[in-house]
Amino acid sequence: MAGHVSEAVLRRLPRYYRYLKELEANNVMQISSQELAETMGLTASQIRQDINCTGGEGRQGFGYSVVQLRRHIGGVLGIQHRQNMIIVGAGNIGSAVALSDSFRDSNFITIGIFDVDPAKIGRRIGSLTVLDYADIAAFLALNPVHIAVLAVPISSGQAVVDRLHTLGINAYWNFVPTDLIIPDGATIVSVHLEEGLQILSYKIRENDPGL
Amino acid sequence: MAGHVSEAVLRRLPRYYRYLKELEANNVMQISSQELAETMGLTASQIRQDINCTGGEGRQGFGYSVVQLRRHIGGVLGIQHRQNMIIVGAGNIGSAVALSDSFRDSNFITIGIFDVDPAKIGRRIGSLTVLDYADIAAFLALNPVHIAVLAVPISSGQAVVDRLHTLGINAYWNFVPTDLIIPDGATIVSVHLEEGLQILSYKIRENDPGL
Repeated sequence: MAGHVSEAVLRRLPRYYRYLKELEANNVMQISSQELAETMGLTASQIRQDINCTGGEGRQGFGYSVVQLRRHIGGVLGIQHRQNMIIVGAGNIGSAVALSDSFRDSNFITIGIFDVDPAKIGRRIGSLTVLDYADIAAFLALNPVHIAVLAVPISSGQAVVDRLHTLGINAYWNFVPTDLIIPDGATIVSVHLEEGLQILSYKIRENDPGL
Repeated sequence: MAGHVSEAVLRRLPRYYRYLKELEANNVMQISSQELAETMGLTASQIRQDINCTGGEGRQGFGYSVVQLRRHIGGVLGIQHRQNMIIVGAGNIGSAVALSDSFRDSNFITIGIFDVDPAKIGRRIGSLTVLDYADIAAFLALNPVHIAVLAVPISSGQAVVDRLHTLGINAYWNFVPTDLIIPDGATIVSVHLEEGLQILSYKIRENDPGL
């Protein structure tokens, strides 16, 4: 993989990836940093700098090969590899993640979903059956899992992380609306859906102070 | 409402709000900027500055009243008011948003969910019935709606925004994984779930380059 990419550049890479995938789907073969800049609302020099940071290369007077650059950025993000996920919590969010095709298209494959609720255990969600959280250690002993999706209530979030960490899970995609304490060496990315809605609420009023 | 808050401060406000709500739930009455800084991983002076920017006030030697500050920040975000939402797209994400209690707790109330799929129209999702998207103009003529949640496939995202905008909707919470063109004066906040997962993927490899 490429050297360390700064947090600011890293946050833009998925957007580059998404644009390039759309271009590829539309059979665009090559693109200049100027064209990419216009679609993405960035400057051409910013784009060249970002791509340089990741070790990607264009050609003077030609620009970037869409396929090559998409693959290169995918490689930096590590999404050319299949990554197995488990989901803890088979509620609304856990089910939506399990059923989503878009994660599967990026090689994130949900191989198990767990809950403690007897009413949910045994239920089908897409091609999966909800498993008993009490059996998670045995499941993890048999199946390689790279990422745990946390979709449990606030009250059990920390206990689930602590347990999964002792079972060897080091990466968490967190939907629990609280800040969880993550052990050294582990990684968490949190999705606080409500925050986006609150920011939208502020902006509505800023645009229309009469509200 | 308070004056303009910078984008950087705005992005932190929901987190302040969440912390203060948790403190309030734990019956903590007052908190110093130093204590808030420790829990939030910021500096005390950063916190005082942020809160000052929003027009909030503490007292020397006392700190902040948790209830007052939570209400103040809620007021800046505009979430003391009830805001009606409609959801377009009754798939996995649309259903999860419709069923979530946490948005309702912040006064974001889903009053309608729409789809074009005859198999989904008429189905119950929690207390709502999926309505025919063809009838959305009549619905909007009768019901005040502040926010539209976009949970449709990429291919119909832009057409839905364009239609809803002509019907008077100016705020969009977007789950469509593409960049939509938003008319002047309208506001969009996009949730690109996959981006978080891709960033997590990068970080896993950064922590463990052997992968």
